[in-house]
Amino acid sequence: MAYSNTYAIRFNDVDHARILYYPTFLHYFHCCFEDFFEHAVGFHYKRVLTEHRVGFPVVHLDVDFKSPLRFGDHVQFTLNVERIGTKSVTFHYVGKRVETEVQCVEASITTAVMNMDTYQAIELPSQYREWFTKHLAK
Amino acid sequence: MAYSNTYAIRFNDVDHARILYYPTFLHYFHCCFEDFFEHAVGFHYKRVLTEHRVGFPVVHLDVDFKSPLRFGDHVQFTLNVERIGTKSVTFHYVGKRVETEVQCVEASITTAVMNMDTYQAIELPSQYREWFTKHLAK
Amino acid sequence: MAYSNTYAIRFNDVDHARILYYPTFLHYFHCCFEDFFEHAVGFHYKRVLTEHRVGFPVVHLDVDFKSPLRFGDHVQFTLNVERIGTKSVTFHYVGKRVETEVQCVEASITTAVMNMDTYQAIELPSQYREWFTKHLAK
Amino acid sequence: MAYSNTYAIRFNDVDHARILYYPTFLHYFHCCFEDFFEHAVGFHYKRVLTEHRVGFPVVHLDVDFKSPLRFGDHVQFTLNVERIGTKSVTFHYVGKRVETEVQCVEASITTAVMNMDTYQAIELPSQYREWFTKHLAK
Repeated sequence: MAYSNTYAIRFNDVDHARILYYPTFLHYFHCCFEDFFEHAVGFHYKRVLTEHRVGFPVVHLDVDFKSPLRFGDHVQFTLNVERIGTKSVTFHYVGKRVETEVQCVEASITTAVMNMDTYQAIELPSQYREWFTKHLAK
Repeated sequence: MAYSNTYAIRFNDVDHARILYYPTFLHYFHCCFEDFFEHAVGFHYKRVLTEHRVGFPVVHLDVDFKSPLRFGDHVQFTLNVERIGTKSVTFHYVGKRVETEVQCVEASITTAVMNMDTYQAIELPSQYREWFTKHLAK
Repeated sequence: MAYSNTYAIRFNDVDHARILYYPTFLHYFHCCFEDFFEHAVGFHYKRVLTEHRVGFPVVHLDVDFKSPLRFGDHVQFTLNVERIGTKSVTFHYVGKRVETEVQCVEASITTAVMNMDTYQAIELPSQYREWFTKHLAK
Repeated sequence: MAYSNTYAIRFNDVDHARILYYPTFLHYFHCCFEDFFEHAVGFHYKRVLTEHRVGFPVVHLDVDFKSPLRFGDHVQFTLNVERIGTKSVTFHYVGKRVETEVQCVEASITTAVMNMDTYQAIELPSQYREWFTKHLAK
């Protein structure tokens, strides 16, 4: 059960070379991550942070940029859970340009699991393990 | 006693039209505001927020954009205090492109004075009134 | 015929004080401006720039920030055309927090009309005058 | 001959969790990359793009985030050239928090070499090979 959502590349998202500034690609991954919580896990990521007191700070990025995006393009990301560790979770993203179906990016993003009161690493709560397992890539 | 500082326009600061994205102009005003505290008032803006528990949220903007900036340009801002009210302070910014001395922007930015514990408006503490008076435009 | 659209306040849109960073408010105005072209005028803003060769650079901002927004909030902007000049157009925005219906921002943003080949000011093309008149505030 | 430069973490660089938003880490890598051209290679990156007609789009990221940064911190990046390929160059960044000397990030960022007229991959021009060789990590 992969999660997908689509984002518009805005006027200011591109750089002087008129292609999507690569850090902004990662911003859209985070938008997709937030929307995954809201639409697939079932509640807003803010509740994860403020009520469950759990955060998922990124500890490792492995990203391949394959094709540029430009102002006016739309990108569709498909998010899977790639690996569920004891104290970390790896999310996998594939992005394609909606207008052409060309794959533009593929990424594995590993997050730690953090207690938002102590800012220390903790084990993934079992409820999250259950939720994420539903989205585990085969 | 005006405060001045210079900022480089970065690769991603421009938009598809290859001129500085106007909200980013305001970001650089805020950088200048932070640097004004560190270099002219005498301590970092973080201490204002976390130790003095005072914040200066923007409540009104009046900005004239006169000339565009491009990637590779540098902008010099000159900051004065325009008006010190009971519960608000207005800062005045003039920006010029360093390479040509052409004025590119002029702004009056009014901030409230906020208690960072209650997020309520307060009167400007007398110590700040004294500090800001030194930078009041004639 | 006002145009309205809603935007989510993202994890990174807030600053250290955990309220929407004020330049980002203006970024969302620009998102709304782009979406107004796509959904109300009838074509994407990129076509305005690249086919019609017309741009609308902001020359004046008059903004009142009335109430903060936080991560997880949604903001609904309502955009009207406030004034159609010979060589400028003023757009009017009102933003309210969706969750509470509280008005958080009101802005008048004046743009010049620019030829995208020469980057010089031009008169508003009559076709645009016609389109914008449909959205003129009463 | 490594290149180093220091950057201030700004009020808006942090997210709702009050730590540096991870895509913004990559933005500062790009600032360092620009400054490397200006200060170590000897001319501004804009000239690379507009006069030499060469661009270095990022094609692969491998990043380890080790420790968070907060508003008011300063980060010092040290940039080396890690590998010079025929049609790609890998840059290596290490970041440490200036206030504590704690290493906060390490990254290998691979760029293609692109002709800015055709947006096609090209071989690294020999002059660039020479310049980058001076900064090759041992």
